[in-house]
Amino acid sequence: MTSSLIYAKYTSIRARTLQLIEPLSEEDCCVQSMPEMSPVKWHLGHIAWFFETFILQHYEKSFTPFHPAFQTMFSSYNKSGQTHPDPLRGLFTRPSLSIVRDYCRTVDERMAQVLNNNADDRMVNTLTILGMNHERQHQELMLTDIKHLLSRNPLNPCFIVAQDPAPTAPRYPLSSALPPLEWCHFEGGLVEIGYKGEEFSYDNESPRHKQYLLPYQLASRLVTNGEYLQFMKAGGYHNPSFWFSEGWDWIKSHGREHPLYWRGDNGDWQEFSLSGLALLDTSLPVIHISLYEAEAYARWSGARLPTEAEWEHAASQQKIEGCFAENNRFHPSTVVVASKAEPAQLYGDAWEWTQSSYSRYPGYNPAKPNDHEPMSIVWDEAVGEYNSRSMVNQYVLRGGSCVTPRKWIRSSFRNFLPASTSWYFTGIRLARDAT
Amino acid sequence: MTSSLIYAKYTSIRARTLQLIEPLSEEDCCVQSMPEMSPVKWHLGHIAWFFETFILQHYEKSFTPFHPAFQTMFSSYNKSGQTHPDPLRGLFTRPSLSIVRDYCRTVDERMAQVLNNNADDRMVNTLTILGMNHERQHQELMLTDIKHLLSRNPLNPCFIVAQDPAPTAPRYPLSSALPPLEWCHFEGGLVEIGYKGEEFSYDNESPRHKQYLLPYQLASRLVTNGEYLQFMKAGGYHNPSFWFSEGWDWIKSHGREHPLYWRGDNGDWQEFSLSGLALLDTSLPVIHISLYEAEAYARWSGARLPTEAEWEHAASQQKIEGCFAENNRFHPSTVVVASKAEPAQLYGDAWEWTQSSYSRYPGYNPAKPNDHEPMSIVWDEAVGEYNSRSMVNQYVLRGGSCVTPRKWIRSSFRNFLPASTSWYFTGIRLARDAT
Amino acid sequence: MTSSLIYAKYTSIRARTLQLIEPLSEEDCCVQSMPEMSPVKWHLGHIAWFFETFILQHYEKSFTPFHPAFQTMFSSYNKSGQTHPDPLRGLFTRPSLSIVRDYCRTVDERMAQVLNNNADDRMVNTLTILGMNHERQHQELMLTDIKHLLSRNPLNPCFIVAQDPAPTAPRYPLSSALPPLEWCHFEGGLVEIGYKGEEFSYDNESPRHKQYLLPYQLASRLVTNGEYLQFMKAGGYHNPSFWFSEGWDWIKSHGREHPLYWRGDNGDWQEFSLSGLALLDTSLPVIHISLYEAEAYARWSGARLPTEAEWEHAASQQKIEGCFAENNRFHPSTVVVASKAEPAQLYGDAWEWTQSSYSRYPGYNPAKPNDHEPMSIVWDEAVGEYNSRSMVNQYVLRGGSCVTPRKWIRSSFRNFLPASTSWYFTGIRLARDAT
Amino acid sequence: MTSSLIYAKYTSIRARTLQLIEPLSEEDCCVQSMPEMSPVKWHLGHIAWFFETFILQHYEKSFTPFHPAFQTMFSSYNKSGQTHPDPLRGLFTRPSLSIVRDYCRTVDERMAQVLNNNADDRMVNTLTILGMNHERQHQELMLTDIKHLLSRNPLNPCFIVAQDPAPTAPRYPLSSALPPLEWCHFEGGLVEIGYKGEEFSYDNESPRHKQYLLPYQLASRLVTNGEYLQFMKAGGYHNPSFWFSEGWDWIKSHGREHPLYWRGDNGDWQEFSLSGLALLDTSLPVIHISLYEAEAYARWSGARLPTEAEWEHAASQQKIEGCFAENNRFHPSTVVVASKAEPAQLYGDAWEWTQSSYSRYPGYNPAKPNDHEPMSIVWDEAVGEYNSRSMVNQYVLRGGSCVTPRKWIRSSFRNFLPASTSWYFTGIRLARDAT
Repeated sequence: MTSSLIYAKYTSIRARTLQLIEPLSEEDCCVQSMPEMSPVKWHLGHIAWFFETFILQHYEKSFTPFHPAFQTMFSSYNKSGQTHPDPLRGLFTRPSLSIVRDYCRTVDERMAQVLNNNADDRMVNTLTILGMNHERQHQELMLTDIKHLLSRNPLNPCFIVAQDPAPTAPRYPLSSALPPLEWCHFEGGLVEIGYKGEEFSYDNESPRHKQYLLPYQLASRLVTNGEYLQFMKAGGYHNPSFWFSEGWDWIKSHGREHPLYWRGDNGDWQEFSLSGLALLDTSLPVIHISLYEAEAYARWSGARLPTEAEWEHAASQQKIEGCFAENNRFHPSTVVVASKAEPAQLYGDAWEWTQSSYSRYPGYNPAKPNDHEPMSIVWDEAVGEYNSRSMVNQYVLRGGSCVTPRKWIRSSFRNFLPASTSWYFTGIRLARDAT
Repeated sequence: MTSSLIYAKYTSIRARTLQLIEPLSEEDCCVQSMPEMSPVKWHLGHIAWFFETFILQHYEKSFTPFHPAFQTMFSSYNKSGQTHPDPLRGLFTRPSLSIVRDYCRTVDERMAQVLNNNADDRMVNTLTILGMNHERQHQELMLTDIKHLLSRNPLNPCFIVAQDPAPTAPRYPLSSALPPLEWCHFEGGLVEIGYKGEEFSYDNESPRHKQYLLPYQLASRLVTNGEYLQFMKAGGYHNPSFWFSEGWDWIKSHGREHPLYWRGDNGDWQEFSLSGLALLDTSLPVIHISLYEAEAYARWSGARLPTEAEWEHAASQQKIEGCFAENNRFHPSTVVVASKAEPAQLYGDAWEWTQSSYSRYPGYNPAKPNDHEPMSIVWDEAVGEYNSRSMVNQYVLRGGSCVTPRKWIRSSFRNFLPASTSWYFTGIRLARDAT
Repeated sequence: MTSSLIYAKYTSIRARTLQLIEPLSEEDCCVQSMPEMSPVKWHLGHIAWFFETFILQHYEKSFTPFHPAFQTMFSSYNKSGQTHPDPLRGLFTRPSLSIVRDYCRTVDERMAQVLNNNADDRMVNTLTILGMNHERQHQELMLTDIKHLLSRNPLNPCFIVAQDPAPTAPRYPLSSALPPLEWCHFEGGLVEIGYKGEEFSYDNESPRHKQYLLPYQLASRLVTNGEYLQFMKAGGYHNPSFWFSEGWDWIKSHGREHPLYWRGDNGDWQEFSLSGLALLDTSLPVIHISLYEAEAYARWSGARLPTEAEWEHAASQQKIEGCFAENNRFHPSTVVVASKAEPAQLYGDAWEWTQSSYSRYPGYNPAKPNDHEPMSIVWDEAVGEYNSRSMVNQYVLRGGSCVTPRKWIRSSFRNFLPASTSWYFTGIRLARDAT
Repeated sequence: MTSSLIYAKYTSIRARTLQLIEPLSEEDCCVQSMPEMSPVKWHLGHIAWFFETFILQHYEKSFTPFHPAFQTMFSSYNKSGQTHPDPLRGLFTRPSLSIVRDYCRTVDERMAQVLNNNADDRMVNTLTILGMNHERQHQELMLTDIKHLLSRNPLNPCFIVAQDPAPTAPRYPLSSALPPLEWCHFEGGLVEIGYKGEEFSYDNESPRHKQYLLPYQLASRLVTNGEYLQFMKAGGYHNPSFWFSEGWDWIKSHGREHPLYWRGDNGDWQEFSLSGLALLDTSLPVIHISLYEAEAYARWSGARLPTEAEWEHAASQQKIEGCFAENNRFHPSTVVVASKAEPAQLYGDAWEWTQSSYSRYPGYNPAKPNDHEPMSIVWDEAVGEYNSRSMVNQYVLRGGSCVTPRKWIRSSFRNFLPASTSWYFTGIRLARDAT
């Protein structure tokens, strides 16, 4: 890509970022509702900080930071080793949102200059593309985090008006129109997984390598709210034999008895979404499920979760279709067609838990685009959070969700989260051994 | 007081409340920086809620709440027994500040109506006066809480511009101009303490009763930053023999080695105040001191803290002079005159820790203005938080601080806080036995 | 007292200590069931350590410790300021109990020598008497701690065989034979409290001083299990209005719904005692009650707890009678006679909570028997734990319990514990204002 | 195996169990030094409980438990889902050790009877063999747990007298006699792993299945104390770039700066072992290392940890030689011969961390020896803790340690522990990609 093409993309991604936060007040953008989350204003400042720190600082002749304090306030790269987003971020009532917008604007102008002045520098282009992908990730996080914040408000605020009206009466039992869950067969054998192509990918998707798979089957669609309700009615949250020991301890110590954003009781469940509170739609995929819950559901139903190799092998044969963030619905859709022939809802509804822990691929080397360039250490820091420092006690999710930007989705993409995470848009894809 | 006079005062107190928050942004008003604190917006809503709940609800013919959810969102009277301010208050990005201002305005108009319609109802007047005193308390809390919030911000924001410029060079050693600490003698004997008068007081100040005091001496002024620095330099934070065992555990587990809002090190101390960060002025009273620290300082200096009876007996003989919140300085002042003849700085600089635990006065009965009125149960709830539910593991503070409204200050007033509290404007008055 | 008389008492106290632990196995003596408690073996080593550290070390010409490591293993005087008994004490499986018994025996022989050699040294006698009182305190603690340990064992082990057989059928409702609770009247006025006499007392009981008391009434006996059961049946644990806010939080976070050693449910309560598990005897005093529970019971019953001055003023007029530890029953007794004329059960059944926080008496000076002697610093350390370091967030208890040695009981004695303590033998004495 | 052969083995395993605890006092056997551990007495009772619960209860005609309370006191199968060993186990001072020995003896006699009466019952034989393997596991745990208990004792007690005297002077720098670390090459390809054979194995070792491995290299021996010391001297514990983020947080929050049982400082390190405290021997393998530390060491040294497939593929080609528990040294040995030709110390020195999370093998089905037998549900419970309930957030260790019984060691055996575990006998085997 040429520098000017890159900057055009840069501009369009930023426009999208700003469009996403349009419905929010300054107060909404300032508050942090969990230590693991960040305020929207911080996300915005952090996006600008990334470009300022990894590009402007190295490519501007006489670099002066927008504000010296911002270099630490908006940093996520904590040399002292603290990698979780800092709970103090929510205390930053100053700078105001409008100053953070100024910060972004100033960085944009300077980025235009730098890209223009270094049109032939492969590194600056690579870092800019990395920054754009980084921004897309924060677009998803903004939506994830704002959903959690609004969910804690007794007023049940609405982020966007729902496009499709919520059901006016409970839809129990299962809507008859829903395609039944079927099993798609895959032969396995010695297959290859990992990124194959010339565009941007993270280093954890490489190298492409061989895996030996036994024959397996993947569910034709995601598990629905209605099906999950059956699990609950069957005492799913009260029978330890379905659960990892650790998962059982977790639901007990957290008093968890239903998915994170469900409210109410058996007779009248509601679900909080970015469109506010509405009656639970049993035909939609169940989301905001921890790995513990996904595993328990799978055991209860006599199935299991797929490995990431199974998932990628199957998914790489399918077209990337889904509702994605660009759809502006920010909620998964009801599946319309799903059959033995090919699994549906692989992309753009919910991140699908796999049973695979997040670890290095065979032959993996942390990314270094060019070891001889003086910029390679910058690169190391810039991609640091995507690589090996997280490769313990995290599990791989695949596919992307209804708040994931389309460009962030590909069959080889490896998302990863701790097993207890349920504030992310996560769902359940069942698998089983072919017998 | 007539109803119209009451409403005039009501209006003027509210004007002051709104004036106080003038320098703050919507973001500043929304965030909660500690579980024990509340956002300014919550304080504002809670002030309106008090009048709505305890007066409008009972005196309006066809009462409709401003918003049903506000009845719990802005309540501090948690029937389930949770009495600490709820950490969730900081998540209320909705309603916006401007809606909460509307809430206040609407309640004001309805209060005017109710007061007018019930001019002869002693109870409605009494409750309104209670509500006004409640509002004054929250004026102080707003300043206390906003100071903490701003103190956590790396930008060291300034709430108000300091009236007196901060010292431009460190003022060590002790400014020679400062009156030396002397000891004022009191004979004691069988004295009386407790509220005496006809105006508003809390029930915990009654009944006025006898106490037998041995001869004692009270320091002529508050302990200064400079004196406290001597304690620190003498290893005060590193010698357990000065400390309550519990206090020693507390400073160790909290890593406390200096007063809460001090920054820096021995050679160059700074203090954060509502005017931002400035060099420490050694002539000013030391503030934001826990009871543990006050006690340790007193032991180190060979003195002790006064009892509340000693304090009140001595202070009731002095005029109420000080800098108070109305001064708009929000920081204590340097003492100018202090002598054996009479103790200075008793009122309006810093709440002074006593060694007395907060407990019921002999003969105390929880307030009931009129047991036969149907409103007495309302009264019980309205004053509930000032009375006996807090009478364990809290210590009495006397005098009032530079963020206390003048009208809230009197010699019999009993403030009370846990021994570990340092975010309040607290200081040290020494005492000793007369020998 | 002469040295030889002192040593005779020393010997008899030690005999009692060893008699008390006779029923215990080595395993029973080794384990620590709560961080606030100590194993019996540690108590024993600590008793010897006290004499070794504060006397032998200073009076033996060529002092060699029994074992260098014991000087810290059995110390409670943690210079680093850690004053709670160390949870690691329960890990000391070595030295064995028999070696700790050797330690005691050796110290005894050396104490005999030192007392003999220093017959005229007032200090050595004073310190020995202090050590003997210290040992009596640990006799009580051994019984308290072993009760807790055995209570956690599913086998409900019996420490001693009950002298009076437990009731074979539940005794509900209240046994008619029990004297009804009546109110004993006291005029109060300007009274004196504090230790008066020539024998041993702790410095916190001095100086004797004046207190002004309003007329008051004290309950004629302790609150019984049966009465406490009424409180529970009336929803006592479910109505926050009876509780200190802090007490309410405590019962909720600890899931407390009945006294510590009660088991079972409404229809069939049992109580665990040092004689094992038996049906609850409703005529016995309720024990193992936190201050929170005592206060809630008092409010529910329309009364209050006494102040320590009220208690001492009333109790100093009564004979010291009770069941004490020497009785070897280790459980309070049913009251037989109690009337308006004089309160019963003041001594030797249960420590009685007062509403008074533990603080220095007016004119109090930490004990120094003789400031000019070089031993005064030893004295300071030896009595350190009884004096002012604990004077925050603790409440005074009076009277002594059924596990308290008779010699430890006097009207001026001030025991003190945190408000949440229920593993001690604590009970409820009601008081009220005389109207 | 015939019943009588099985019972002979049963007897010999029990003899070994009892021999192991010979050096311990009753007190040593009673105390629990960490929530994750159990007292030796509990292990012993639990061993008997296993046979009583899963065999006697089902095969004895008129089964009566030895003591009804023991059925829960010695159970690890907590239906309520609490799977960590209960911290209350350390409070069981009763039953005494001698009663628990009686419990074992009684169960032995009854087992002899049952085995004799059911000589042809395949299930009873299978369950007995399972119980014997279960007992071997607890032999290892007893040694692990007693090491931790003794390590917390200031007397540094010795469990056994060391066979080889500890070095009398520090052995820094690296002993020249030690074979240098070399790299053994393996071609990989499509290999098979998993249990192959006819003897006892756990279900998690099955089914044997194909894995595709890139060419790789394995270190010729374990990492030594001396090498680990280099890592420490190079600032290993102070540089976050070597650590998983989670590992960095862990060492910081636990104040970890060296292996668990090391004491002292840079100039004079000592190591606590079951032979007491001795100067650190730099030629011995480093043990008691968490996965976090193993990974950090590997990164610092430019290598990585092996996968479990790599380890098993390499190890299955080697003879099983090592020092094992039978050696009665309970400490790893210095390697004598190690070369490129074949890796040494694979078995019987230290459990070797792999980078593989513990998860189900492809085609895995939880063990059911015979679905049609009524005993299959018993089997499920009996093996429950070895199978899938633990398959999250645990990492696989291979090889066995110096406290592992020889019979428990095989190339396919999968041990698993949380990444933070360091109280187990764990060590570091390096691996790297063949380039």
